Amino acid sequence: MLQTRILEPTEGAYAYPLLIKRLLLSGGRYEKTREIVYRDQVRLSYRELGERIARLANVLTEAGVKAGDTVAVMDWDSHRYLECMFAIPMIGAVVHTINVRLSPEQILYTMNHAEDRFVLVNSDFVALYQGIAGQLTTVDKTLLITDGPERCVELPNLVGEYEQLLAGASPRYDFPDFDENSVATTFYTTGTTGNPKGVYFTHRQLVLHTLAEAAVLGGDDSVRLLSSSDVYMPITPMFHVHAWGIPYVATLMGIKQVYPGRYEPDMLIRLWREEQVTFSHCVPTILQMLLNCPTAKGQDFGGWKIIIGGSALNRALYQAAQARGIQLTAAYGMSETCPLISCAHLNDELLAGSEDERVSYRIKAGVPVPMVEAAIIDEHGRFLPNDGESQGELVLRAPWLTQGYYQEADKSAELWRGGWLHTGDVATLDSMGFIDIRDRIKDVIKTGGEWLSSLDLEDLISRHEAVREVAVVGVPDPQWGERPFALLVVHPDRQLDAKALKEHLKPFVELGHINKWAIPSQIAVVTEIPKTSVGKLDKKRIRVEIGQWQASNSAFLSTL
Amino acid sequence: MLQTRILEPTEGAYAYPLLIKRLLLSGGRYEKTREIVYRDQVRLSYRELGERIARLANVLTEAGVKAGDTVAVMDWDSHRYLECMFAIPMIGAVVHTINVRLSPEQILYTMNHAEDRFVLVNSDFVALYQGIAGQLTTVDKTLLITDGPERCVELPNLVGEYEQLLAGASPRYDFPDFDENSVATTFYTTGTTGNPKGVYFTHRQLVLHTLAEAAVLGGDDSVRLLSSSDVYMPITPMFHVHAWGIPYVATLMGIKQVYPGRYEPDMLIRLWREEQVTFSHCVPTILQMLLNCPTAKGQDFGGWKIIIGGSALNRALYQAAQARGIQLTAAYGMSETCPLISCAHLNDELLAGSEDERVSYRIKAGVPVPMVEAAIIDEHGRFLPNDGESQGELVLRAPWLTQGYYQEADKSAELWRGGWLHTGDVATLDSMGFIDIRDRIKDVIKTGGEWLSSLDLEDLISRHEAVREVAVVGVPDPQWGERPFALLVVHPDRQLDAKALKEHLKPFVELGHINKWAIPSQIAVVTEIPKTSVGKLDKKRIRVEIGQWQASNSAFLSTL
Repeated sequence: MLQTRILEPTEGAYAYPLLIKRLLLSGGRYEKTREIVYRDQVRLSYRELGERIARLANVLTEAGVKAGDTVAVMDWDSHRYLECMFAIPMIGAVVHTINVRLSPEQILYTMNHAEDRFVLVNSDFVALYQGIAGQLTTVDKTLLITDGPERCVELPNLVGEYEQLLAGASPRYDFPDFDENSVATTFYTTGTTGNPKGVYFTHRQLVLHTLAEAAVLGGDDSVRLLSSSDVYMPITPMFHVHAWGIPYVATLMGIKQVYPGRYEPDMLIRLWREEQVTFSHCVPTILQMLLNCPTAKGQDFGGWKIIIGGSALNRALYQAAQARGIQLTAAYGMSETCPLISCAHLNDELLAGSEDERVSYRIKAGVPVPMVEAAIIDEHGRFLPNDGESQGELVLRAPWLTQGYYQEADKSAELWRGGWLHTGDVATLDSMGFIDIRDRIKDVIKTGGEWLSSLDLEDLISRHEAVREVAVVGVPDPQWGERPFALLVVHPDRQLDAKALKEHLKPFVELGHINKWAIPSQIAVVTEIPKTSVGKLDKKRIRVEIGQWQASNSAFLSTL
Repeated sequence: MLQTRILEPTEGAYAYPLLIKRLLLSGGRYEKTREIVYRDQVRLSYRELGERIARLANVLTEAGVKAGDTVAVMDWDSHRYLECMFAIPMIGAVVHTINVRLSPEQILYTMNHAEDRFVLVNSDFVALYQGIAGQLTTVDKTLLITDGPERCVELPNLVGEYEQLLAGASPRYDFPDFDENSVATTFYTTGTTGNPKGVYFTHRQLVLHTLAEAAVLGGDDSVRLLSSSDVYMPITPMFHVHAWGIPYVATLMGIKQVYPGRYEPDMLIRLWREEQVTFSHCVPTILQMLLNCPTAKGQDFGGWKIIIGGSALNRALYQAAQARGIQLTAAYGMSETCPLISCAHLNDELLAGSEDERVSYRIKAGVPVPMVEAAIIDEHGRFLPNDGESQGELVLRAPWLTQGYYQEADKSAELWRGGWLHTGDVATLDSMGFIDIRDRIKDVIKTGGEWLSSLDLEDLISRHEAVREVAVVGVPDPQWGERPFALLVVHPDRQLDAKALKEHLKPFVELGHINKWAIPSQIAVVTEIPKTSVGKLDKKRIRVEIGQWQASNSAFLSTL
């Protein structure tokens, strides 16, 4: 290590750790007119939000929550969730944002693994909670969250009901300073195999992520994503990487926030209209669902800016959204990365290109945001050139990446081998810094001695006008090693079979975009494609189902 | 300290210190069309800038500069200065940005006090340097910077000429990681008494300041100060708190940057026009000079956004600039604070007010930027209410405040007493968080048992149409303790005496804005008001001169 002149910033009068409480401005600094809205039930000013965060901190402290404890939250997206994302870390505890879409067994596993001491349970999840409560090994106390008048639901070791307790608590709390490297949040990510894995982030990491995200969202011209007069509504659950960190950014900027509770399309569209929402984020499948729901029919969504992440954004969905007035911007990140890594801001050169070229960049993962280093490596860990051609595993460095998986030393070491976080994604990097995710390493299809990106093929297939949704996976093939298999949802009044799909793909073979063995010889047309709990294509389940259909010669199948 | 779950971020594979090198994006991520311009002499792409930073790092390393060494720069504002602000800290050394407007004795003092080992000297300062070289106690080597062909100037222990050395060096340098708490920059601030004092900032502090400043400048609507398509030209020297940190922000955002060298009005206006500058920052006196210079006569500066700081912005100057198309925004900070503390962004409520009300807020110090805590205290250190009325010393906490004055333990302890940085400014804070600087503590005038703000009186006097510049100080008075004394520069074709000034101020007495003893009974009309090396009113010198005039009954004086 170099012999620099080092000043210790955590000692002395000037110590000023990066703590989540610093993201919460003093009440007076917020716009009086900007509210935190929960469905059509609650409207809070920022001043009230601040007081409620202090009340919650008092409730938790009086209930015995100590610094270092883990406090779990099972709730729909709400102002209360936002309050938990501040109050729990601000007293030095760790907020565990439970993925309520996991199976009860998985939720039980994550709660015991995270050593949750205290749980806040929305009344909608009481039955689920009661089903697992007997097997929870670390939980001492529970706190009930209710929307309606049902304030006396039975829960084991119940401290009381959220609103009743807050009403009786002091709106002042002297939030202490402590080490910025204290863990603030944790949540579990479900991989393709094995148990969910817990990632975790410190106060320092969340503060840095928030500042960088605020600078990125506000600072660019090609699409200025977020300004203080925007109205924000998440359409990615708050248990999913803190709704991509945007609630922290929105609070820092004092932006009006709208929380939809459950993600029912009708409620989302109603809130969008009535609260004049201008900025959201979601995964592609949720956007698809939103555009296709009956309430949205013929609706012009002009002025709505949506960040798309979580899965690749294909051209068809981009254009469908654009035709409805929605401005999409792709971004890239994952649970392990807090999540923001890159954003598809276009530079002047790209903006000067054709519409077709612009779209092809707007749907890529984008350029790394400030403070993020990205590289691609081959299977031997050697760095590959940023030439837009070489494909390798995307590896990252940044100040806000999880240090590992909780109590999973081997997997943590694997995640961080060579001093870089390994994403498991195959990507190219070009000379402009643009990241193009080609596929998950495990989803790449090895056919005829070549690698075929399932994402590429999904993109090309999605351009067929009959296709509403598509998932491509590799299935074992004795001759080719693997062959691509396409699972499709088609528009209600349209039809598609393997032959028609072949006709659609042939021109792309002739243009050299894909090889001829990339054309699936068998497809399945279904009414729904299996998704994970956060709305991504569940390729693990898709592979299992395809095997079953093939074994039973299911009617879903269409063969060339 | 609470027992939180602490993760050490500086150990292990995931260690990612906040270093200045992270602000420099990889070359490809910058717009190809955006340049770094130095007068009409040099145009660089960001890629070239990156290479030149590496070349300079190689030159310095080969010349023997080691991590921990202090490297001084004596240059005009230039691309080379920007290169120094990156390359020197990036090799673990400390860049000392020398205030070239100080007297030779003061420069000598600061260089010995900072223990400078290596000095880069622009040929314009060679004579000055040679005058003090014999008394420098720590300097080993010098490096010459030249603009023109005069590349063989004599300097003691000369390593060579900047451009020649860079041309011969490698454009690659593997910049190492090290502790983010390493000192990166230092410079000296001149107080009213005693020697200049050295403040210093770490890599971590500068990175945090840059991210927060980028978020603040990009994220607000009332005046969106900076976006990636802006063109930036500093009009505050780079030795003055890193030109307020904006060169780091501009580099992070990849904005076109224009460096004017010396601050000659003609060059500034020419560059503004030819390079289409849209964003600058300066102190009020420099703006005044610019508006009044012959080249600017009748010029419409439409579209130019200028941040004003360093001294209070008065209404007359605000309106004069506005009439010429310039959008001014006040900001507040000081050498000790890196500097950004607050910015006069208007909220919706204020924007809805009358033009007069809006202006009265736009010229205040503004609201604290994210991560900054501001409070006011009385002389016993007790916190005062944020009611817009109570006046007290403004004290601050933030992650980017200097830890003290270099090798001045007593003054450092005084700066940080009670765990807050003491600004020496008297201010009010209102319920919206707005900071209104009332005066420097030492410039408050104690008259008739009341405190009178010299800034208030300057503001009211500046509204007289004959007044071009004004400075108010307290002078001893046997009856009143102190009485205000106004020093004035009047417009060339106008006149003003103490009687006319009294008539101008009487309505404000009647409105209750000031007490009647706030009306100066004696004024002086001069052609120039003494300024400090960074363009602020030099009230120390003003007081001395007034005493001399009063003793000699100077013709400058006008008495009621």
